[in-house]
Amino acid sequence: MPWQPPLDDIAFLLGPWLRARDDWKRIPRFAALDLDTAEAVLAEAGRFCAEVLAPLNAVGDLQGCRLVDGCVRTPDGFAQAYRRYVADGWPALARDPEWGGQGLPALLELAFTEMQVGANHAWTMYPGLLAGAVACLQAHASPDVQARFLPPLVGGEWLATMCLTEPQAGSDLSLLRTRAVPAADGSVRITGAKVFISGGGQDLTPNIVHLVLARLPDAPPGTRGISLFVVPDMLEDGSRNGVFVDGLEHKMGLHGSATTALRFEGAVGWRVGEAHRGLPAMFVMMNAARLHAAMQGVAHAARASELAHAYAHQRRQMRAEPRMEPEQPADPIAAHPPIRHLLRCLRGWSEQMRAAGYWLGHLIDLHEHAPDADERRRAGMLVELLTPVAKAHFTECGHLLANRALQAFGGYGYVREYGIEQVVRDSRIAMIYEGSNEIQALDLLQRKLLADDGARLTVFADECERVAAKAEGAGLAAAAGVLRRLCRRLSAAFERVRAAAASDASAPARVADTFLRATGQLLLACACVRTAAVASGDTGAGADACERAERALWMLGELRLEFNAQLARLRATS
Amino acid sequence: MPWQPPLDDIAFLLGPWLRARDDWKRIPRFAALDLDTAEAVLAEAGRFCAEVLAPLNAVGDLQGCRLVDGCVRTPDGFAQAYRRYVADGWPALARDPEWGGQGLPALLELAFTEMQVGANHAWTMYPGLLAGAVACLQAHASPDVQARFLPPLVGGEWLATMCLTEPQAGSDLSLLRTRAVPAADGSVRITGAKVFISGGGQDLTPNIVHLVLARLPDAPPGTRGISLFVVPDMLEDGSRNGVFVDGLEHKMGLHGSATTALRFEGAVGWRVGEAHRGLPAMFVMMNAARLHAAMQGVAHAARASELAHAYAHQRRQMRAEPRMEPEQPADPIAAHPPIRHLLRCLRGWSEQMRAAGYWLGHLIDLHEHAPDADERRRAGMLVELLTPVAKAHFTECGHLLANRALQAFGGYGYVREYGIEQVVRDSRIAMIYEGSNEIQALDLLQRKLLADDGARLTVFADECERVAAKAEGAGLAAAAGVLRRLCRRLSAAFERVRAAAASDASAPARVADTFLRATGQLLLACACVRTAAVASGDTGAGADACERAERALWMLGELRLEFNAQLARLRATS
Repeated sequence: MPWQPPLDDIAFLLGPWLRARDDWKRIPRFAALDLDTAEAVLAEAGRFCAEVLAPLNAVGDLQGCRLVDGCVRTPDGFAQAYRRYVADGWPALARDPEWGGQGLPALLELAFTEMQVGANHAWTMYPGLLAGAVACLQAHASPDVQARFLPPLVGGEWLATMCLTEPQAGSDLSLLRTRAVPAADGSVRITGAKVFISGGGQDLTPNIVHLVLARLPDAPPGTRGISLFVVPDMLEDGSRNGVFVDGLEHKMGLHGSATTALRFEGAVGWRVGEAHRGLPAMFVMMNAARLHAAMQGVAHAARASELAHAYAHQRRQMRAEPRMEPEQPADPIAAHPPIRHLLRCLRGWSEQMRAAGYWLGHLIDLHEHAPDADERRRAGMLVELLTPVAKAHFTECGHLLANRALQAFGGYGYVREYGIEQVVRDSRIAMIYEGSNEIQALDLLQRKLLADDGARLTVFADECERVAAKAEGAGLAAAAGVLRRLCRRLSAAFERVRAAAASDASAPARVADTFLRATGQLLLACACVRTAAVASGDTGAGADACERAERALWMLGELRLEFNAQLARLRATS
Repeated sequence: MPWQPPLDDIAFLLGPWLRARDDWKRIPRFAALDLDTAEAVLAEAGRFCAEVLAPLNAVGDLQGCRLVDGCVRTPDGFAQAYRRYVADGWPALARDPEWGGQGLPALLELAFTEMQVGANHAWTMYPGLLAGAVACLQAHASPDVQARFLPPLVGGEWLATMCLTEPQAGSDLSLLRTRAVPAADGSVRITGAKVFISGGGQDLTPNIVHLVLARLPDAPPGTRGISLFVVPDMLEDGSRNGVFVDGLEHKMGLHGSATTALRFEGAVGWRVGEAHRGLPAMFVMMNAARLHAAMQGVAHAARASELAHAYAHQRRQMRAEPRMEPEQPADPIAAHPPIRHLLRCLRGWSEQMRAAGYWLGHLIDLHEHAPDADERRRAGMLVELLTPVAKAHFTECGHLLANRALQAFGGYGYVREYGIEQVVRDSRIAMIYEGSNEIQALDLLQRKLLADDGARLTVFADECERVAAKAEGAGLAAAAGVLRRLCRRLSAAFERVRAAAASDASAPARVADTFLRATGQLLLACACVRTAAVASGDTGAGADACERAERALWMLGELRLEFNAQLARLRATS
């Protein structure tokens, strides 16, 4: 079952769902962009994914990466695909025109990310950190460092890595030990060991730019003593820097993506941003990576959905009630209730996670470029609130749905040829990296909700109310009622958590995972109701829109069950 | 973290929990068996698993099997381990003394199975079907066939496979095409293709005995035209039979276990049981395999629990509230609420699934050997009802818990060295084979509940009531009340399903998965309450027993939440 770009969904979401063009018109940078052009760009991006990346997915898993004389050998075809990616100009898609970018919306890049991951997650890991690295350098590096590193990164001639984790410091960066010693010329010498570095030592580009967290000699202990540095593999004089690949991880999945242990030995680097303020600078990169991880969850669910649909409609076993194909010796398993339910879940979640993800992408564009300051502020609050939610909830849903989809294949699901077991293995990591889902849950409750006394939650509730009102206007009073009820119940649950936190400092950590799931379900419920309202309001759109609305309303019922179960758990544990 | 046998649990379960000795005394075959001997046998079995099987687990996964000139090469060490297993007499443990077996209870064999799987699931696949094959031949084969095949199978000199599935016939055996043509001497010639055959062509034993489903020339279509045959790889005259290994599957996990495609070309075989009545005969083998699959779920959860506990207590990241190790730079992650909750779930589910599994094993012994006919009948009803429940629910819990446990390891969970990702991959298949979990759910609702109008459910409800009364007697009125309420609600839910089924033939299939999960949760709730009652009633047992009771009561609360969520879903979909 070859991977195919979700062009119908793209058209529906950019068009009637987001009405992105209405917003682009108001933004100078995007004013000339019309829907046809945006769709054409994504169709072309989809073709690249389908024709260049997808054929390398299974073979990349089978071959994996090898470490030869301290250099990583990526699977056959990966380097050629990357050269094509650069030659076609894809890295610069949403980068700033000031630095040679094409200046298209982040929304389009996010949609492209989902497609790349759906076609070949492992390959996508290599350019996956470019956008974040560029954003980080643009925001924090000195003009000198920017001039040296930004142009090749924007064009994709060089690639970037994010070097945070050390063997003893994963979720807890305060335990970082890597040292940066200032040199006379204003540069530093970096020494230390970093692990789980995606794309370290790869053979796709002639240079690799590492963004490295380390401590200066006068650094205070803890996270307030961490600075950020940029460290290239190759120095300007053509000599190799002191960066060495010490090992290559053997992983459950993503075999085509090189996960390396890097050793820095007096490597030459330059500080990015203020001394001891490396974490906030790195967070620019992390936040971009988190939303991209959320889209990985979407991609995995969507790919699992496609694979399971195709298999379940051609595999015939036993009779269904009523019979679907009486002339055949048995009915397609898609006709059997448990498989039918599974397929509906897969399709529903894929569609609505994608819708919510696009919405977040569009909010990023509004946050950065909307002409009105209040609009920018509110969009920013939503992005801050919903990024950890989407990262954790969508990656969890993506993996768990892929795992459920495997079941539809029976024994064939467990073997390589059918592709689904690779989706299960590849998708598992997204729940861990870019801040584990447990870290996202703490971030949501502590930093995004308790820290502002729920102000961001109120903005999100306003958004839900807007969608509910729209649904009511489209004759969907029941769906509007469900959304309002879920929203009220989540707000009330937050108030209970806030009260508990006032007298018991450990209370938030006890309920954080549950609270995040409930928030994720509310986000998806909001997407469902908006989809139903848009699709059923789109009177000229015909049967497709009707079915889309029906699917969304069916899923709303499923979400309500799940939400209720989470709230019961929240009540029991808080 | 080396695998260790769960000797404490074994002592608790055989002793105060099951009071197995009281029952053994009443059964002539087991009358001489005391608890010390039983525990000593299992301790020795555990030593075999720890010393011989466990060291081959990771290397077997890494090497996998190879197909060389039509023969399977198992990983290094697998054959030696198997020779040791046979030399030590383990295959005969619970076999009939009449055929050279040691005549020990099925309960002990089931406990041994769990340990083997925990130590090395892939290896365990090879002898995994011996017990079922022997039971099937004892029950259905002619004296002639028995005399030829039983002795080497009982002793484990030969191994067996179960050849049901064909490319077009998985869950739906009515679509079987393999043919059996009678020969003049009373034997048959078998021709056809079988897939997903565990242990086909292995290099552990000089002969392999295949139990093959096929159609005789005069067979009616559908499942009523299927007969069972025994087909050895090697014939008595030393010549090779027409059985060929056509392929070896590349799987997500269980790499050390050979999953083969077999081709039968005029292979000589002999009928087992009546013509066209092969399925009921094969079901003897299948039922044994299903309970063993349930114990695989237990083993995976228990192994995941051990690995996660060990890691979470040595890995230090961030401060917990309150601090656990103030003198260290950070606290063990076991102190953080999400990980603490995960560890409690892992331990709780492992313990209670093991308890419930042992109970089923003991019920098999009572069903087969209890002196009282009514006791045998009631034990049989419970085994029939609860085998599909345990198979599906425990394998699902085992896999999902292992998958959750991986999260505790952060990035290290995704790499090979820590072992947990192998548990996730290996455990996935148990939800599919021996009848997929969806098939178990249909079996439960259609054949075990609707077919006898809930008589078996009533016997189980009586059992729950007995446990509740015991708990009440031990001062655990609240726990008793929870168990009674869950039991009443499940019975009421069954009545609703029954009413719906009367007017809508597709109703049971729609709710079967949900109903099975709820029944599984009730089974575990019953185990929790029994554990709490036994452990808290055991006044001389000290702190260990107290903690065991506390863990069981805590888990009962978790189960109640999950049960309520399933019942809400049941109500919404029926």
